[in-house]
Amino acid sequence: MSGGVLDAILAAVRFNDDGLVAAIAQQHDTGEVLMLAWMNAAALTETLETGRVCYWSRSRGALWRKGERSGQTQRLVELRVDCDGDTVLLRVDQEGVACHTGRRTCFYRAAAPGPGTGGLVEVVPVTTPPERLYG
Amino acid sequence: MSGGVLDAILAAVRFNDDGLVAAIAQQHDTGEVLMLAWMNAAALTETLETGRVCYWSRSRGALWRKGERSGQTQRLVELRVDCDGDTVLLRVDQEGVACHTGRRTCFYRAAAPGPGTGGLVEVVPVTTPPERLYG
Repeated sequence: MSGGVLDAILAAVRFNDDGLVAAIAQQHDTGEVLMLAWMNAAALTETLETGRVCYWSRSRGALWRKGERSGQTQRLVELRVDCDGDTVLLRVDQEGVACHTGRRTCFYRAAAPGPGTGGLVEVVPVTTPPERLYG
Repeated sequence: MSGGVLDAILAAVRFNDDGLVAAIAQQHDTGEVLMLAWMNAAALTETLETGRVCYWSRSRGALWRKGERSGQTQRLVELRVDCDGDTVLLRVDQEGVACHTGRRTCFYRAAAPGPGTGGLVEVVPVTTPPERLYG
């Protein structure tokens, strides 16, 4: 990726006061929303250049190459930027499971609106036990 | 929705220091990611109780009933909460267009990773002119 093209993409992104932009990861072919994390300019640059998704870990204060411990990497298929530039949508190919709990997606608890809802119920099973991801 | 059930859902959500949680809206049947916005506890409560999506507008500092000006409302089909509770996924039925630019989704600019990318290109057309939304 040429510096000019990369600069143009970075210029379309409005990083917040902490230098971060929200990043939604979506499985590119099924449409499944997998997770939301954050990127700084370095993480976004590395992701665009390598095609392997890299976030910024707010808890660790470090670049977080998704799957660096668990092996559950994300390959970037397409990056989208929203209308006001404060969120990016990463259309990815997720290896295995996105969630540290061993589920395909982090959004595994669901509730329906209105009266008669049963509250939050788990709707996505554990497919890879966490001890196998981080053992 | 009973107070107990609502309380249980709210208890699963970890609002940030500003009292907000990130909310991703996704068209429930096509999987299209439409937008990202923010909710406070009042917005989330109203959304769950009425089934009509209400956000918190950070720029206006007020509840934002999606579509209150444009008519492009969102009906909540299912709420999902992520593993650490700091993001909710709203599976919605979007009336018309989600984006104030008149496009179905706010994520209308796309780039591919790696060398040879052409930078950001528009991949979603305007289907409702903004002047018709806000005229």
